[in-house]
Amino acid sequence: MQFPSHSRASTEMRESMDAYGISPALQEQFTRCSSFHTVTAPGLFIGVFMVDYALELLGARHGEKLYAVAETYKCIPDPIQVMAGCTFGNHRLQVVPIGKFALTMNRPSEKYAIEGVRVYVNAEKLKKFRIINAWYTHSPGFDSGTMIYPLIDEILKAGRDILSYQRVIVRVPPKSSWKSVKCNDCGEMVPDIALEGDHCKGCGSQSYYEVLS
Amino acid sequence: MQFPSHSRASTEMRESMDAYGISPALQEQFTRCSSFHTVTAPGLFIGVFMVDYALELLGARHGEKLYAVAETYKCIPDPIQVMAGCTFGNHRLQVVPIGKFALTMNRPSEKYAIEGVRVYVNAEKLKKFRIINAWYTHSPGFDSGTMIYPLIDEILKAGRDILSYQRVIVRVPPKSSWKSVKCNDCGEMVPDIALEGDHCKGCGSQSYYEVLS
Repeated sequence: MQFPSHSRASTEMRESMDAYGISPALQEQFTRCSSFHTVTAPGLFIGVFMVDYALELLGARHGEKLYAVAETYKCIPDPIQVMAGCTFGNHRLQVVPIGKFALTMNRPSEKYAIEGVRVYVNAEKLKKFRIINAWYTHSPGFDSGTMIYPLIDEILKAGRDILSYQRVIVRVPPKSSWKSVKCNDCGEMVPDIALEGDHCKGCGSQSYYEVLS
Repeated sequence: MQFPSHSRASTEMRESMDAYGISPALQEQFTRCSSFHTVTAPGLFIGVFMVDYALELLGARHGEKLYAVAETYKCIPDPIQVMAGCTFGNHRLQVVPIGKFALTMNRPSEKYAIEGVRVYVNAEKLKKFRIINAWYTHSPGFDSGTMIYPLIDEILKAGRDILSYQRVIVRVPPKSSWKSVKCNDCGEMVPDIALEGDHCKGCGSQSYYEVLS
């Protein structure tokens, strides 16, 4: 679901942000995240508030090396990557596809577990926000044709009021050692720990394409 | 593995890029991707060349809506996100963890499959590049203490010369419909399609934290 981006909407949104007391620094994060995400989406906006909250709860310093888990692929990975520097490619973001609008952030650890903070959308708190609740619960009462602007506005107004947090112990996955081997089918190199029998996962269970030329 | 970022190294790298004929536009992509990735890594640099090649092979217009698959979590997801706008949060990037330094990009499709392009590091071509080959194959002959600068330099010099591509047919995963339900254990809302029996995956197979408070 996308928020149509035209100048009237952008100006109104900026005015709403000012009216709801959203700081210029956080407004800048909304802009950066929307640009990365390529569209302005309601879930992205909630995600920006979530990451901002988690960073504050951790007492994180600017540019500090952190790790994150997103509990859904929907929107949340993007503000985590842009605002906290935990990206997929630098191995500091993991998605655990539980289907919840929730994230966990923690500092590095040499041990098997470390304290972190989990921020999530609280279904009870959401009941006070009629439009967000209808959208979030995928209710037939939510009409994306007419309610997208009021939805964004209610999200900006609610800010952290729909969120809760928990202090948690996050398990740290162990690292694996590997050596490079050739797949017997396609002939490409893969880590031995990624093999399925004598062939790679691309020739096996993870096959997702057929070669044309 | 990271490339130490200090001014001498940055200046030398920029001079090497000029000497190897890397365009100012592509140099700008190296800067943007390194900034997002938070560090300058050899795999990231190869990834920038790969995404640039894939976009050219597709004849992609600036800002065009594309979809991508990365065949590893290592580095490659980041240049795909930054350069092609296919992010995790906007559902246009998928990682299929095959363990290969390869990516596939394609246009949107209403059907079950669409033609795309797959760009990959070609192990045969790599043999001409001694340092990259030693690093890429995880050889004990690669010493990260002394060979990181020469490695980056060889990557910049090689450019596309270590890459190959295939025209492929990519399968498009179907979308699922869902409704919001409450997990019987934690009480949080999840899509019904993400349940395991009467509880969510966070209370089941995907559990990754314990609550402190």
